[in-house]
Amino acid sequence: MTDTICALATAPGGALGIIRISGPQAFEAVSAICSVHGASVAANTVHFTRIISPSTIGGELVETLDEALVTVFHAPHSYTGEDSIEISCHGSAYILNKVLELLMQNGCRMAKPGEFTQRAYLNGKMDLSQAEAVADLIASSNKASHNIAMSQLRGGISTELAQLREQLLKLTSLLELELDFSDHEDLEFADRNELLALSKKINKHITRLAQSFDTGQAIKQGIPVAIVGKTNVGKSTLLNRLLKDDRAIVSDVHGTTRDSIEDTIDINGITFRFIDTAGIRQTTDKIEQIGIERTYAAINKARIVIWIIDEEPTQEELSKIRLLSDNKQLIIARNKIDKVENKSFTIVKIPFVEISAKHGQGIDALEDAIYMSADIPAFSDSDIIITNARHYEALTRANEHLQRVIDGLQKQISGDLLSEDLRLTLDTLSEITGGQITPNEVLGNIFSNFCVGK
Amino acid sequence: MTDTICALATAPGGALGIIRISGPQAFEAVSAICSVHGASVAANTVHFTRIISPSTIGGELVETLDEALVTVFHAPHSYTGEDSIEISCHGSAYILNKVLELLMQNGCRMAKPGEFTQRAYLNGKMDLSQAEAVADLIASSNKASHNIAMSQLRGGISTELAQLREQLLKLTSLLELELDFSDHEDLEFADRNELLALSKKINKHITRLAQSFDTGQAIKQGIPVAIVGKTNVGKSTLLNRLLKDDRAIVSDVHGTTRDSIEDTIDINGITFRFIDTAGIRQTTDKIEQIGIERTYAAINKARIVIWIIDEEPTQEELSKIRLLSDNKQLIIARNKIDKVENKSFTIVKIPFVEISAKHGQGIDALEDAIYMSADIPAFSDSDIIITNARHYEALTRANEHLQRVIDGLQKQISGDLLSEDLRLTLDTLSEITGGQITPNEVLGNIFSNFCVGK
Repeated sequence: MTDTICALATAPGGALGIIRISGPQAFEAVSAICSVHGASVAANTVHFTRIISPSTIGGELVETLDEALVTVFHAPHSYTGEDSIEISCHGSAYILNKVLELLMQNGCRMAKPGEFTQRAYLNGKMDLSQAEAVADLIASSNKASHNIAMSQLRGGISTELAQLREQLLKLTSLLELELDFSDHEDLEFADRNELLALSKKINKHITRLAQSFDTGQAIKQGIPVAIVGKTNVGKSTLLNRLLKDDRAIVSDVHGTTRDSIEDTIDINGITFRFIDTAGIRQTTDKIEQIGIERTYAAINKARIVIWIIDEEPTQEELSKIRLLSDNKQLIIARNKIDKVENKSFTIVKIPFVEISAKHGQGIDALEDAIYMSADIPAFSDSDIIITNARHYEALTRANEHLQRVIDGLQKQISGDLLSEDLRLTLDTLSEITGGQITPNEVLGNIFSNFCVGK
Repeated sequence: MTDTICALATAPGGALGIIRISGPQAFEAVSAICSVHGASVAANTVHFTRIISPSTIGGELVETLDEALVTVFHAPHSYTGEDSIEISCHGSAYILNKVLELLMQNGCRMAKPGEFTQRAYLNGKMDLSQAEAVADLIASSNKASHNIAMSQLRGGISTELAQLREQLLKLTSLLELELDFSDHEDLEFADRNELLALSKKINKHITRLAQSFDTGQAIKQGIPVAIVGKTNVGKSTLLNRLLKDDRAIVSDVHGTTRDSIEDTIDINGITFRFIDTAGIRQTTDKIEQIGIERTYAAINKARIVIWIIDEEPTQEELSKIRLLSDNKQLIIARNKIDKVENKSFTIVKIPFVEISAKHGQGIDALEDAIYMSADIPAFSDSDIIITNARHYEALTRANEHLQRVIDGLQKQISGDLLSEDLRLTLDTLSEITGGQITPNEVLGNIFSNFCVGK
């Protein structure tokens, strides 16, 4: 890399703002705007300095733009592997803009999204799956998605793929062995069985990984939940009750727009997203009964439907909600149990959770029911869960190649015809970690989803 | 300070998040969650480490919460003057919350707004006016407000007040001299004149400072501008043209809510705020003619009114806009000059700026007119401008006390009766820098306006 890049690495609007600089000119560029020269100070040290901006207004020649902390990292012992500097300024938009401007006047250019991490990858500091984990880690908002991203960052997928690769290489060498001894017919059949067994074992392993993508998606994106029910049944009270138990210290802002933030809660580390909560909150009175358009839409987008009732539903209502919730997990919650005398239903015999949204009774049981309905398979921190569509797609393709090897083995096709498919299986798996040379457009796609400054 | 405080010092939502810890337990608390103990490493060094969070899910005992950089500052060489640590984590809401939680489990408490700076003040790292400048600096969004805040942070006001204090002490000693020699009538009169001259000089100095508050406010809060005119005259085109020339690299988000952000432009380092631009953009068609309610309200809030016309106005229209813009700076801009053949007005002889909002002609001249209308007095970077209402109020009160000294001197009131007012003048000025003991409630007021983490 011959360019030196710079970017704001923190969100604008805080007390502090961190500007990152990386590349061969990092030390020169920063020394032009303050008294710290990266090459003349020890690595991993932090220095209090004034950021100087030449001023023309007011007749003074020298102007202090900010009092800042400058942290120096020497190549290759930095995040990117290059000479790097982090400037910790006051978080004023004016100051941050001006520092970036000054850096650009001194030979830096603005970094593209994910470009720092891309350099870390290109400089061999991490493989592609680890680089992708960085973006996932930053976006993670609950324990489960965090743990998966952290496991991936710490090389979980890389290790798993290394094992698969080893087995595939063993398969390749067995196939070559077979070719070498192809005159000995008795030997061939013994090897074929072993080859087939090993191929199927690898195939199963890859399938298991690919199947975890469903869980991975649910964990990464949260599980959509719809709260439905008649007017005044307590929908908004329940929503507020569920949300109240889950307030974070740091307001849960990720991404760039506030508009797209939905109301979410975490249960046992899994995020549940409430659909159309604005509707529940603002227009409770308009949802007259089950069946109106908005309720349809909410149920349609949901994986879990919470139907709130406060009296015994009619058979007709029950049939209707069951029809609507086809393919969904339906939870029936009976609200206002603190007000009701006779709590048992006489005609409609259905299981329900008894709650008082207002006073909090039964909310734990309801949360348990929500969590169980999500049907997330049990997994430990060390299990590998695929969350990335690119990985899923590569695993699926790798298995297609491998399936051709299995078919070929079963059809007694000659080994030299199978080796090409085996090579394709290996290459396709390598795409995930980027072990093979990765085309620029693929890299571009991966890193364009990052935030700037990482 | 016996408490150890922690807070997120950056806005949530970026690639990185910085958590600050300060106080006697800072090193202990941080060493409980990672491998760095502040006391055993050199000051001002940064360390790559894993943040460990004991995990119960998944059966593993140790969990890596994040890979982070930890920067260590030893008391008294830190921002607060205390042992301090900054943890630079990935900017995930989950991670940041969890780190704060872990720190609180290990003896820290969440910092109140501005508490780090309050500690810096209480530990003698800066005076009150400098502490207040920190908040102003973070909020500054243009060159002028930034320069004033930076000058204040670097002790501009403190130096100015020290000079006033010196002169007031000289006055006091002269008064005491007079008392000592009060038998000598001839001496007294000579001293009285000198006393009076000096008092008036100080009074004038304080008045000048207090008067700068008007400019300070305009610079700090931006100057409100209303764009008015008939339908289809080009109001929204002009607004977009003005805004387009002023796009910043870092999106201009300060404060906490996006809702309150108005459209602003900077001209020569001064911010101009456009009033009711949502109205201009969305409901152009509804502003049928000058005189409707919305236009009234916009003009009422403005300091500068830009009246856009595209043809010669009638005398009636001109009278109306002049009446509405009473006490305002009125700029008349004639738009669509690219379309008009005869550019001179025949009946209404008024000066106007010729522009084409669509093609950009005359926009520089219009910006010059806006800047001139703001009537910001020329000031250099080294001039002291008061931007803080607390300072303005203290200066005003100090001058009231000083006025009583002046009146007393003129009425030949005995010196010992004047010394009390002189002392009050001194004390009141000291409130600004907090040289006197500052009551807790005053401190609370000052720092409660800060963001958390600073």
